[in-house]
Amino acid sequence: MGKLILENTSEIFRPSARAARTPASVTRDILKVIDTPGMISFAGGLPDDTLFPIQDLRNIFETSVSKKGAKLFQYADTQGYSDLRAWIADRYYPGSNADEILLTSGSQQALDLLSRYFIEEGSPILLERPSYLGAIQVFSSYAPSFIGISYGEEGPDMEELKYALKNSSERPKFFYCIPDFQNPSAYSYSLETRNSISELLLKNGIPILEDTAYRELYFEKELPTSLCELGPEHTVSIGTFSKTLAPGLRVGWIKAPKKIVQDLIVQKQSMDLHSPTLNQELVYGFVSSSKYEEHLSLIRKTYRQKSEHTHACLQKNFGDSIPLQISKGGLFYWLEFPEEIDTDLLFRKCLEKGLAAVPGSSFFVGKPERNHLRWNFSNASEEQTKLGVERLYKVYLEMVSNC
Amino acid sequence: MGKLILENTSEIFRPSARAARTPASVTRDILKVIDTPGMISFAGGLPDDTLFPIQDLRNIFETSVSKKGAKLFQYADTQGYSDLRAWIADRYYPGSNADEILLTSGSQQALDLLSRYFIEEGSPILLERPSYLGAIQVFSSYAPSFIGISYGEEGPDMEELKYALKNSSERPKFFYCIPDFQNPSAYSYSLETRNSISELLLKNGIPILEDTAYRELYFEKELPTSLCELGPEHTVSIGTFSKTLAPGLRVGWIKAPKKIVQDLIVQKQSMDLHSPTLNQELVYGFVSSSKYEEHLSLIRKTYRQKSEHTHACLQKNFGDSIPLQISKGGLFYWLEFPEEIDTDLLFRKCLEKGLAAVPGSSFFVGKPERNHLRWNFSNASEEQTKLGVERLYKVYLEMVSNC
Repeated sequence: MGKLILENTSEIFRPSARAARTPASVTRDILKVIDTPGMISFAGGLPDDTLFPIQDLRNIFETSVSKKGAKLFQYADTQGYSDLRAWIADRYYPGSNADEILLTSGSQQALDLLSRYFIEEGSPILLERPSYLGAIQVFSSYAPSFIGISYGEEGPDMEELKYALKNSSERPKFFYCIPDFQNPSAYSYSLETRNSISELLLKNGIPILEDTAYRELYFEKELPTSLCELGPEHTVSIGTFSKTLAPGLRVGWIKAPKKIVQDLIVQKQSMDLHSPTLNQELVYGFVSSSKYEEHLSLIRKTYRQKSEHTHACLQKNFGDSIPLQISKGGLFYWLEFPEEIDTDLLFRKCLEKGLAAVPGSSFFVGKPERNHLRWNFSNASEEQTKLGVERLYKVYLEMVSNC
Repeated sequence: MGKLILENTSEIFRPSARAARTPASVTRDILKVIDTPGMISFAGGLPDDTLFPIQDLRNIFETSVSKKGAKLFQYADTQGYSDLRAWIADRYYPGSNADEILLTSGSQQALDLLSRYFIEEGSPILLERPSYLGAIQVFSSYAPSFIGISYGEEGPDMEELKYALKNSSERPKFFYCIPDFQNPSAYSYSLETRNSISELLLKNGIPILEDTAYRELYFEKELPTSLCELGPEHTVSIGTFSKTLAPGLRVGWIKAPKKIVQDLIVQKQSMDLHSPTLNQELVYGFVSSSKYEEHLSLIRKTYRQKSEHTHACLQKNFGDSIPLQISKGGLFYWLEFPEEIDTDLLFRKCLEKGLAAVPGSSFFVGKPERNHLRWNFSNASEEQTKLGVERLYKVYLEMVSNC
C-alpha cells in the first residue's frame, strides 16, 4: 500500500450537484470570529441562557432515569415520545391528537424533512421576502425555483401573492411562512391577513408550511389564531422548544394530517432512525409541569425589557436617522438603513470593531435588499447592548460620511 | 373560512419523487407487531440494555451540569464537541485529529449526510450484497444506480468488483462496506482483502465509505487494520456509540479528510444545525473514563455467551439441516435455509407464531436472495432465545413438509 498517492483528494471525492448548491450560511462566518476577544455578538437567534431552568432539568433527569432506566437509552420509536406528542397536540392544535405530531431534532430538521418530502428540483415554492436564512439554506439544497412575496407590517403583500399564483406556470409546492414575529422582520400577520391567505391558498390547492418558532414570545398580547388552526387540512405546522426551553436539547416538531405524518416518518427513519429519547423526556418533564407557564412569563418579561432597552439605545444613538419601531415579540430588530448604506460592507466594518450582527442580504431569495441588518436582542446583557449599539452607530456614521 | 373542504388532502400535498422512492423499512412493519403479547423479537439490532452503564451516566450528567451549566443547553458548534472529536480521532484513527471528525446523530445520519454529499441521481454506487438495510433505504431515496458485489467469508468477491469497475460506464461515486462483522452476514474482511480492496479502489479513484459500527464487538481477537487506516486519503469512516454505549443517545461520527469535513459541516448545518450537546457530553464523560475498556470487555463477554447459546440452540433444533457457523463478533446470525424456503413467507408465518426476525430479501439490492433470515442475538434472554429458536424450527419444519 501507499504506492499510489493522489495529490488532489477532490479527484476522488466528487460532491453531488446538491452539495455544491447548499450555501454556507453567513452565520458560519460569524461563528469563526465570534470568539475573538472583545467581540460582542447580536448575530445568532440565541435565547438568554441565564433563563434555562437547569435545576428543574436536573430533577427531571433524576426522576426519569429512576423511573424508566435503560428504556431512555435504548432505540425508540421514530415518531417520538407519545406523551410529548399528545401534550403538543393538546396545547397547540386544539382538536388534534398525538398521531398528527412527529418529533424532530429541532425545527431545522423539520425544514429539511419537509423540503425532502415536498420539493422537486426546478418546481416553484413560495416564501416571504425576507425570510429565515436557515430555511433558505436548506430549501436551496433541494433546488426549487423560489418565488418571494414581500412581507410588510400586516403580513405578505396579498396582491403580489395573487399575481404570483396567477402567473406561475406550475402550481407551487408550498408557501413557507413565519406569521408570528418573523425572523428577521419581527412583523406578524393580522387576523385578516391570516384568513385571506389561508383561504386563497386552499382555493389554489397549495399547502402552507407555517413556522411557529416565535409564537410564544409575545410581550403584550397573544397573536391571532394560527394558520394551522384556520386551515388544518392544508397546513403543516412546525414548532420548536429551542426558544421556549433550550435549543441545545434539539427538540422540535411537525404537525400535519395523519396521512402525511405517516409518510414523513418513513423519511425521518432514513435520516436518523429517531431523535434522542432522553431529550424528549427532559422536555416533556418540564413543559407538562406547572412550571412551564411561569417560565414562559419570565421569558416574555425579560425579553420585553431587553427589547425596550435595545430600542432606547438605538434611539439615543440614531435619533430619527433610521426608522425605529419597537419589537413586541420574538428575538430581533430588523434595522433599516438609508439605501446608500450597503450592510454587507457595514457588517464587515462592524466585525473589525468587535461587533457581530447579520447583514440583511442573507434573508432574501432573488435580488437582495442590501440596507438591512438583523439584530438579536435576547442574548446580550444590557451593558453589552449599550456598547454594541454605540459601536454600530460609530461605524454607521463613518459610512455615511464616506457616502 | 371552512367553506372549501377538499375531500382528498393528497391533492394538496404532493410528495416529491424522492419521497415516493424511499422504501419503508421492513423493520417498521415488525415494530407494529412487536408489542403483541407473547411476541419474542430477534429483529432489531438492539444492544442488551441491561448492560447500559446507567449509574455512570447519572454521575456524568450531575458533574457536567454542575461544571458547565447553561452551556450544555445552548446552541453549539455544528461540528460537535471538540473533546469528544479529539478522543475519537485519537482512539480510532492514529495520526488524525479532531478537525477530521464530524459528530452526527447516530451513524444513520452519517449515511444520510454522505448520501446527500456524494450521490447523484442515476450515477452508480458500489455496495456489498447483502448489505445493511438502513443504508439501502437511505441510498435509495437519492436514486443512485446500485452495483452489488457478492460478500463471502473473506470479504467481497474481488473478481466481481474488478469486473464491475471495468464495465461501469461511469466511475462509481463510492464503495459502501462493513468490513467488520457485517450486518447482516456477520462476515469480516481478511487483511489481504482489505489491502487489495483499498489499493484497487484508490487506483480507480473511488472513495470508500467504511461503516465500523460493529468493529469493537469482537469475541476472540481484534480485527485486521481498518480500511481507513490503510488508505486515509480515499476513505471516509463512519462510527457510532450505539452498540458500545447506548443507541438512545444518538451519537455517531464521520471521519474524513479535513477538506471534506468542512463541506460536510455545511450540509449538516442545513440538516439540523447541530446534534444535541448534552448527549455528546454524556458520551465523552463515559468513554474518556477508565470504565470504558471494562465496559467493552463486559459487552464482548456477554455477547459471546449469547452468540454461543444461540448457536447451541440452533444446532440442537436444526442439526445439520442448515449450515451453522458460530458468530465471532457483531450482533447477528445470518441463517441460510434451503433454496426452496422463501423467508418472506417464513417471516410472516413466524410472526403468527409470536416470533420476529428480518427476512433476508430486505438486505439485497437488485434481485434478492430469498432464503436467508437475519437473527439478532444480543437483546433476547437465554430463555427467550431457546423458545424463539424452537418456534423457528417448528415453522421451518412445517414449510419443509409443504415443499
